[in-house]
Amino acid sequence: MKVLVIGAAGMIGRKLVERLAREGALGGAKITSLDAVDIVAPTPPAAPFPIHSDACDIASLYVPGKLAAGRHDVVFLLASVVSGEAEAEFEKGYGINLDGTRMIFEALRHQQALSGGAYRPRVVFTSSVAVFGAPFPEKIHDEFFTTPLTSYGTQKAICELLLSDYSRRGFFDGIAIRLPTICVRPGKPNKAASGFFSNIIREPLKGEPAVLPVEDDVRHHHASPRSAIGFLLHAATMDLSQLGARRALTMPGVSVTVAEQIEALRRVGGEKAVALIQRAPDETIRRIVAGWPRQFDAKRAEGLGFKAETDFDAIIRAHIEDEHV
Amino acid sequence: MKVLVIGAAGMIGRKLVERLAREGALGGAKITSLDAVDIVAPTPPAAPFPIHSDACDIASLYVPGKLAAGRHDVVFLLASVVSGEAEAEFEKGYGINLDGTRMIFEALRHQQALSGGAYRPRVVFTSSVAVFGAPFPEKIHDEFFTTPLTSYGTQKAICELLLSDYSRRGFFDGIAIRLPTICVRPGKPNKAASGFFSNIIREPLKGEPAVLPVEDDVRHHHASPRSAIGFLLHAATMDLSQLGARRALTMPGVSVTVAEQIEALRRVGGEKAVALIQRAPDETIRRIVAGWPRQFDAKRAEGLGFKAETDFDAIIRAHIEDEHV
Repeated sequence: MKVLVIGAAGMIGRKLVERLAREGALGGAKITSLDAVDIVAPTPPAAPFPIHSDACDIASLYVPGKLAAGRHDVVFLLASVVSGEAEAEFEKGYGINLDGTRMIFEALRHQQALSGGAYRPRVVFTSSVAVFGAPFPEKIHDEFFTTPLTSYGTQKAICELLLSDYSRRGFFDGIAIRLPTICVRPGKPNKAASGFFSNIIREPLKGEPAVLPVEDDVRHHHASPRSAIGFLLHAATMDLSQLGARRALTMPGVSVTVAEQIEALRRVGGEKAVALIQRAPDETIRRIVAGWPRQFDAKRAEGLGFKAETDFDAIIRAHIEDEHV
Repeated sequence: MKVLVIGAAGMIGRKLVERLAREGALGGAKITSLDAVDIVAPTPPAAPFPIHSDACDIASLYVPGKLAAGRHDVVFLLASVVSGEAEAEFEKGYGINLDGTRMIFEALRHQQALSGGAYRPRVVFTSSVAVFGAPFPEKIHDEFFTTPLTSYGTQKAICELLLSDYSRRGFFDGIAIRLPTICVRPGKPNKAASGFFSNIIREPLKGEPAVLPVEDDVRHHHASPRSAIGFLLHAATMDLSQLGARRALTMPGVSVTVAEQIEALRRVGGEKAVALIQRAPDETIRRIVAGWPRQFDAKRAEGLGFKAETDFDAIIRAHIEDEHV
């Protein structure tokens, strides 16, 4: 089995390649080679199969054709410009998140035509809950409409539609998974508006202070990096005919308030960890976060076997184990 | 006021230009010129303002820029490849329905940039209820998700998303109206699967026989050509700030069974008209029609002042008046 990971240098991409390298197989089939690409060349881990690492820009006209020519059995398409950047740089956001993705889809379609119809890869595309825009119900169900309030969310919603149509027409066998906020994100605190959800757990566990810019009653929907990798692997191996024509799925997760996050930290990390959280209300962040979904009823994905943690304690424990905290 | 109608040679486009020519104004503002374009040059009606008619293909790279350079105050974007053709010719459908539309949007954005932000036209885009895909509830409400089952529906749903994002960012002031099946369509019987809904009214009123290929209990949602023009004019003149970021609206209409259509024909056209309907069940058409929406709860559009007929008798009477039957 040949695997392609586009966006392999990001947090999720890196963890996915590491996991594939560790397992050596995908859905019971031995991996024979893996191509790992990103805008900067990913650093490949040790693996029982060759990993080819390369730097390329999927928004460049010549790149998608070159990548698709590898005729991989499974294509993970994780690459995208993040929300803030897609909003600040209109052309770049559309160029990479829409046109780059669409050109990959088109290049795969051309490979299928060249193969006389024999080639039909699995495509796993990471979408986002940013396809939803406020106002929404307290719990967003699986048939709620996609009215994004960012260019990033618009681009993801469009790619979902394209992926469903290309799959319906049999050009490839695709699935779009809408990732919730990933928590606890490893690494350093960053400036993303959602950063504090991870910061207030990760930093105190290291004995470092962390800033909490919102009220304790703010509710949000989380899944661990470990769950995100689990979603990708399940999406790559499950029988997609169960999805019919509706190929985009909201992933499950844990919906908790900040207060519940802090209580979980108290149980797992103790009082001394909680004491490191510093409250510093920030009106801008408060306002941004107020426009985000708080909870999903991801019945369909759960019914199809996608599994996330069931409480926030488990999310913290996964972080401690996976990041060797 | 300068007006551009893209897709002016189609049934709706022609009626729109005729109506504008008759009224000489749009929303109280005098029309000073109208550009009418289509893949074949539209035949302009007599009008109190100059009408420039031209043949052009919006999928050609040089065309959208040329059209947008006219800096029209209102752009009606009606051009598209129809459902059956977009399904049969994948590249052509995406080329015109997605890329052609997107290039028009982009060309308008560039005109705005060139104008230093001063130019911000009204864009009225005709979408379709094909953005919905079965299975759906008996009545489709305004927040039901868009999971099209055709490439045409996919292209329309994508253009809705683009239009909402371009409007949110202030590049133009756009609205997408999802037209229901237009009935009674004037002209000759055609081969569209939906053709019989009009044929069984129009032909008997002329004393001609018409074929009914489905059962009498088939339910469908209709609006007259006159209502469709009313939707377009209202969309061109209403205050769009009321829409917020959600710029796509399902239009109201009349949901009736075929039996109710026939009863209305009996009331308006008499028994002799009804006698001209010939039942000839067609399994293919029956199956296609079974996958179509039957009814919409178009609360939002109604609340915003969009008006359709309230019964099928009125639809037949509008046909008789407008087509001089």
